[in-house]
Amino acid sequence: MYMYFPFRVCWIKDIVVAVTGENIEAMKSIIQKYQHKGISLVEAGVTRHRSIFNGLKVLAGDQPGSRLSRPEVVIIHDAVRPFFEEDDLLKVVKAAKEHGAAGAVRPLVSTVISPSTEGCLDHSLERARYRASEMPQAFLFDVIYEAYQQCSDYDLDFGTECLQLALKYCGTNAKLVEGSPDLWKVTYKRDLYAAESIIKERISQEICIVVDKEEKEHIGHLLEAVLRNELNHVKVTSGVPCHAGGSIQHIIEQCYSFVCVNVMTADFQNTQKLLDMLEECNLSILYPVVVFSVHFLDFEVGPLSQKMESLMWIREFAIEAKKRNILLCGLLINYSQDERKLQESLRQGAIIIATLMKERNFALVGQLLVA
Amino acid sequence: MYMYFPFRVCWIKDIVVAVTGENIEAMKSIIQKYQHKGISLVEAGVTRHRSIFNGLKVLAGDQPGSRLSRPEVVIIHDAVRPFFEEDDLLKVVKAAKEHGAAGAVRPLVSTVISPSTEGCLDHSLERARYRASEMPQAFLFDVIYEAYQQCSDYDLDFGTECLQLALKYCGTNAKLVEGSPDLWKVTYKRDLYAAESIIKERISQEICIVVDKEEKEHIGHLLEAVLRNELNHVKVTSGVPCHAGGSIQHIIEQCYSFVCVNVMTADFQNTQKLLDMLEECNLSILYPVVVFSVHFLDFEVGPLSQKMESLMWIREFAIEAKKRNILLCGLLINYSQDERKLQESLRQGAIIIATLMKERNFALVGQLLVA
Ligand SMILES: [Mg+2]
Ligand SMILES: [Mg+2]
Repeated sequence: MYMYFPFRVCWIKDIVVAVTGENIEAMKSIIQKYQHKGISLVEAGVTRHRSIFNGLKVLAGDQPGSRLSRPEVVIIHDAVRPFFEEDDLLKVVKAAKEHGAAGAVRPLVSTVISPSTEGCLDHSLERARYRASEMPQAFLFDVIYEAYQQCSDYDLDFGTECLQLALKYCGTNAKLVEGSPDLWKVTYKRDLYAAESIIKERISQEICIVVDKEEKEHIGHLLEAVLRNELNHVKVTSGVPCHAGGSIQHIIEQCYSFVCVNVMTADFQNTQKLLDMLEECNLSILYPVVVFSVHFLDFEVGPLSQKMESLMWIREFAIEAKKRNILLCGLLINYSQDERKLQESLRQGAIIIATLMKERNFALVGQLLVA
Repeated sequence: MYMYFPFRVCWIKDIVVAVTGENIEAMKSIIQKYQHKGISLVEAGVTRHRSIFNGLKVLAGDQPGSRLSRPEVVIIHDAVRPFFEEDDLLKVVKAAKEHGAAGAVRPLVSTVISPSTEGCLDHSLERARYRASEMPQAFLFDVIYEAYQQCSDYDLDFGTECLQLALKYCGTNAKLVEGSPDLWKVTYKRDLYAAESIIKERISQEICIVVDKEEKEHIGHLLEAVLRNELNHVKVTSGVPCHAGGSIQHIIEQCYSFVCVNVMTADFQNTQKLLDMLEECNLSILYPVVVFSVHFLDFEVGPLSQKMESLMWIREFAIEAKKRNILLCGLLINYSQDERKLQESLRQGAIIIATLMKERNFALVGQLLVA
C-alpha cells in the first residue's frame, strides 16, 4: 500500500487505516520507517463497507481505549487511489459541510450496459446521463456514522456506495464534485506501470547542480543551460554549497536529483562532500536520490586512460551510497577547447542525465559514462 | 495511432481505417513505412457513429471505385485499444455468427451513479448488475449495415453504442462476451505510460546470446544461466550463427534483444557480423533492437586501460547502428580465475543487460559499461 500525499496535509487531524490482520505488522513497520504521525490502525472487515464502519467506530470514540475525538467532517478514501492532490480533498470537504455529504465523480470512459439473464444486451445507458463515482468522499461525521449504524447487513455485505447509504438512511443528497483524472483506481498490472512512471515523474521535477567554488560557477551555468533545454518542465537550479547551511541547503530538502560538477579533476572530494550533506538531511528514506559525479576533462590533453583508472573508483563510492538509497553515477564530459565539441559533449551529457534521472534505476549504479 | 496486432491476423481480409482529413497523409506514410497490407482509408465523420458508417459503406461495395467485397462478418474496433489478442477477436466473431451481433464487456471498476439536475446524487446503480461495454464488437455485416442505414441523425450524432443500434433497428440481441483486461482504452496520460511499459515488456520476451565459435559455447552457457535467473518469464536462447541460414537465423526474426559474446578480445568483429545479419532481416523497422557487445576480459591480466581504449570504439559503431534503429552498448565482464569474482561479475552483467533490455533507451547507446 502506497499513500502518496495525505500524510502531508496539515489540516487532517487523524488518519484511520483499515488493514487486514495479516498485514498489520507490515503496516506498522511502514509507519515507523517513514515516521508517519497521527495514524491509527483498525482491523479491516470482510467487505469495504464493514471496513469503513470499523474505522468510523474508532473515530466516534466509542471504542474502549480510543484516544481519538469525534471529528466534525470525515473523508473516506481508497488506498488504491494514491495520486490525489490537496485540492481534491478541500473540494469534497467544503461541499460536505454545506450538503452533509459529497463525493468526487468522473465521466464514464465506456458505455454502461445491462445484460439480460441470457448474457445478451438488454439495454445500454445514455453515457452522458451517468457518472462514475470515485473517491475521496466527505461527510458530516454524524450523518455517515448514523447511516452505517442504521443500515442493513445486506448493505454492509453487498453495497459499494457510501453516498447511497447517506441518502437512504439519512435523506442526505450528496453533492457531486467533478474530480481530477488523478483520482483513478490502481486496479490492473498496467496501472502499476502507470503509477511507477507517475511517481518517477513527480520526484524528478527538480535537478540541482552543485559546484565547489565560485570560480567554477560558469561551468555550472553551461551545464544548466543544456539541461534546461533537454528537461522541459524540470526546474534546474545551481549553486555553491555554503557551510553555514545557506544556498544549497534548502534545495536539498525537496530535490531528488543532483549533479556535482568537477573541473579537470578525477577525484571524488566534492562528490563525497555532497553525499555527506545528503546523508544528513535523510531525504533518501522516501525515494532514491540520484547523484551524478560529472567530471569535465579535456580528452585531448594528457593520457585519459590514467584519469579513467582513478575515476573507476566511482564503483566503490557507489556501493557505499547505494546502502543509503543514493544512486551514484559517474559522467565524463569532454571539456574541449573546440566550442563545437564542447557543446556536443554537453548535449550528450544532458541526455544521459535526463534519462537516468527519470528512470532512477539501480542497475547503472557505479558506472562511468562518457558524453 | 498505434495498431499492435490486427495486421498480423491472417483470417482478416480487409481493414478499413477511419482517419480525419488532416491525418490522412501521416497515416499513408505509416502504412508504407511498416509495409502493412490490405488497408483502406476512409475519411472520419464528426462523430464515432458517422466514422463507422463511412467505413461500412466502403465495405458494402456501394462506393464508386471500391474494390472491396461485402464481408459476411465485420469487426468494429477502436484504435485506442491496441493490446487485444487474436482470441479476443475470435470470440466475438464466433458469437456474432450465431447471434447476429456480439461485443466484449468488462466488470465496472467504479460504481455508476445518476446525478440530479442540481448536481446531487439521485441514485446509484447496483454495480454487479451492469457491465462496461468495450471493443472489439462483431456483427453479421447485413445486420449492422441495415442498422446504420435505418438509424436517425440523433443516433449518429449522440449515440455511443453500436450494439444498441443493432438491437433498436434490427431487433438483434447482441451476445455479451467477457473480454480480457487487455481491452482497456488508452485515454489519459497515465495510459500512455502504461502502454509504453506494456510494449517494452512484449518485445523483451526473448533474448538471444550469440557466440562466434563452438569452443566458446560454455561461456555463452555461463551467461545464459545467470540471465535466466535475472530475467524471469524471458526466453533465453544461445547459439552459433551458421552461414547456411540455420540455428540463429530463425531466432533473429522474432527477437529484439541480442548479446554478442567476445572472449579475451577487445575488437568488434563478431559484433559487426551480428549487426550485418540484423540489418539483412529488417526487423528493427518495427521496434528498436538492443545489442550488447559483451567482452569477457581478465581484469588482473595485462593493462586493462589499453584494452579499454580499443573498446571505446564502441561509440563509433553505436552511432552507425543507431541510424538503423539498433541500440548498441558495450559491456565488460571480469573473466576472473576466481570463481566467486567471476560469478559476481556475471550477475552484475545480467542485471545491466536485463535493465537496458527492458528500458530500451537510446541515451545509453555507445556506452561501455563495466560489470
Ligand atoms: Mg464504447
Ligand atoms: Mg466506488
